[in-house]
Amino acid sequence: MNELANRALLPAGLRDILPLDAEHEANVVSRLMAHFSAQGYERVKPPLIEFEETLLAGVGSASASQCFRVMDPHSQKMMGVRADMTPQVARIAVTRLAGAARPLRLSYAGQVLLVKGSQLRPERQFGQAGLELIGPDSAAADAEVAVLAAEALAELGVAGVSIDLSLPSLVPTLLAELKLSAEESLRGSLDHKDAAGVAAQGGAAAPVLSALLSAVGPAERALPILAALELPPAAAAVRDRLAQVVALIREAAPELTLTVDPVENRGFEYHTGIAFTLFGRNLSSELGRGGRYLAGGVEPATGATLFMDTVLAVLPAANPPRRILIPTGTPRAWAQALRAQGWITVAALETADDWSAEAKRMGCGHVLAADGVKNV
Amino acid sequence: MNELANRALLPAGLRDILPLDAEHEANVVSRLMAHFSAQGYERVKPPLIEFEETLLAGVGSASASQCFRVMDPHSQKMMGVRADMTPQVARIAVTRLAGAARPLRLSYAGQVLLVKGSQLRPERQFGQAGLELIGPDSAAADAEVAVLAAEALAELGVAGVSIDLSLPSLVPTLLAELKLSAEESLRGSLDHKDAAGVAAQGGAAAPVLSALLSAVGPAERALPILAALELPPAAAAVRDRLAQVVALIREAAPELTLTVDPVENRGFEYHTGIAFTLFGRNLSSELGRGGRYLAGGVEPATGATLFMDTVLAVLPAANPPRRILIPTGTPRAWAQALRAQGWITVAALETADDWSAEAKRMGCGHVLAADGVKNV
Repeated sequence: MNELANRALLPAGLRDILPLDAEHEANVVSRLMAHFSAQGYERVKPPLIEFEETLLAGVGSASASQCFRVMDPHSQKMMGVRADMTPQVARIAVTRLAGAARPLRLSYAGQVLLVKGSQLRPERQFGQAGLELIGPDSAAADAEVAVLAAEALAELGVAGVSIDLSLPSLVPTLLAELKLSAEESLRGSLDHKDAAGVAAQGGAAAPVLSALLSAVGPAERALPILAALELPPAAAAVRDRLAQVVALIREAAPELTLTVDPVENRGFEYHTGIAFTLFGRNLSSELGRGGRYLAGGVEPATGATLFMDTVLAVLPAANPPRRILIPTGTPRAWAQALRAQGWITVAALETADDWSAEAKRMGCGHVLAADGVKNV
Repeated sequence: MNELANRALLPAGLRDILPLDAEHEANVVSRLMAHFSAQGYERVKPPLIEFEETLLAGVGSASASQCFRVMDPHSQKMMGVRADMTPQVARIAVTRLAGAARPLRLSYAGQVLLVKGSQLRPERQFGQAGLELIGPDSAAADAEVAVLAAEALAELGVAGVSIDLSLPSLVPTLLAELKLSAEESLRGSLDHKDAAGVAAQGGAAAPVLSALLSAVGPAERALPILAALELPPAAAAVRDRLAQVVALIREAAPELTLTVDPVENRGFEYHTGIAFTLFGRNLSSELGRGGRYLAGGVEPATGATLFMDTVLAVLPAANPPRRILIPTGTPRAWAQALRAQGWITVAALETADDWSAEAKRMGCGHVLAADGVKNV
């Protein structure tokens, strides 16, 4: 048994998904993809592995430290295993689909691999399912993607879906307009929501940064605080876009909880506009995230990615299916007819003395007897 | 454009699957898995990557030369990216599911990566969808798996599905019983169906080996030739098992074409009993293969794997979906109602002067006008 136990050992953060859970995951992914597809998002499927130089270009550079590399024996060039599918879909949009009409709506689902898990999220392999809207740089596009991702979660049965909106470009834009440099210590204080630190390190920007910090919270409370701020033009445009997007999301999906964090930028390194994180009620782990970026460094785009490991963790487990044992010698057409009615048929391969006991042993709640379907 | 062209370049044998094709592939995989699931095969999902020593143990050793390796920074042990899912599913069966009732029926679908493609089949990434039946060593189990895999292909619309049955253990068993060694040159002659070579190199076994060679072809012709041979007991048992499996397949699926090759063993390195390859009418590339082996080196098992790249290549392309453009300002409930009827709705994000022209530009055959759905 020691040898078998060894053979069952998997690297940290990787696991075998067993019956019921594996099928449940596949069904959930199908439902998400159907939801995206119904609104015109067309599925693409990039490879698991591609040249490092294409995988890690532009928006892909954010995942450089998380990519396993192998050498391609054919070209002798290095390849990377994807740690994120968004950069691949963006690559497809600006290369192979450069000539396709805009707005270009793409969706994707697949597995990603990470070099290291985090303490909060030890998984090194998980499924992503997402959508990208390429071409328009508008509040309507920002809102469409956020609403679609959030509604897809709600339709799956996630309770109390919330969108936490961030403006990762706001603070850098503001500091640049005020001709101030963004010191590491100030960035740290903003990240840690340290009001005293922000007041001390913010220099001439301290009052406005402190006001931004005080706006963190429900959108209803944040928007008036932000609206009252005197901001230079580019920072004001970022703030105004947020107000437009919030209004559009409210109109489309009034049931969603919206919060705003105007100073957050962790995890949004490549985002150029409105970004967001998706949560469920009382959930500390993110169900997905997304936002605006430049596809291939050139074309306006916004997208969202759902993380299947955290999504599946909050959904109720799948109901066990109705299984029926089919004794040896049963005409094949009978089993076929049961399957057509939605039964899962489990064929006995040997005769048994007690078919009911055999059904129980095989995890079947029913057995096909001479007089029809019988509970066991 | 040169820079963009470079960015579109993928390693040989890897590709981006684009709209319609990517969704078609996902739908085909779902249908296959539903077919397996309806007959009690429960889905499992092993990780893309695992320790080399577990991935390449036992039946996995056949894919050792095709696995990319990376080091696990956590354990400092080598990991391999799977080139075949069968060994992973067998590992799950004999470790995590060692206590589950037998017969154990498992199914799986996922991507595999190969270090090198072949001339005939340059793909280095493709999807596998398969099933494994673990526990029984019986003709009924052999037949169930072969029939299920073949019927799944037929249900997808593959024309003229045939099962080419092989007996990779027959020649080695026979030679061992006759106390003859299997010379490389003899193996080569058998592999190349070189009757003169077999006659010259077969020694005392030449007559029976020549007879086996002459049996290659349709099952109806092969079985009587094999039945007439005087074989030592172990070889006779292999031959008799074939006859039983053919009879069971015929009974279950009389429409399938069955051929037999009693001397083939290429690609069946780890098989211990009846093995088979699946073809479609006039197709030279394999749609799948399978056969009997020992899971974890200890437990009788048989299984089949379908190769999604070759399966998709023989299926007709998917029908383009019905897309309808939804002009700006349309109440959301109207688009929702169209989606409930099966339409794909494509929301306009900006107003247009000519909605019909805009629909055409966006690849929509219809537009939602004031008086209802309009063809464009």
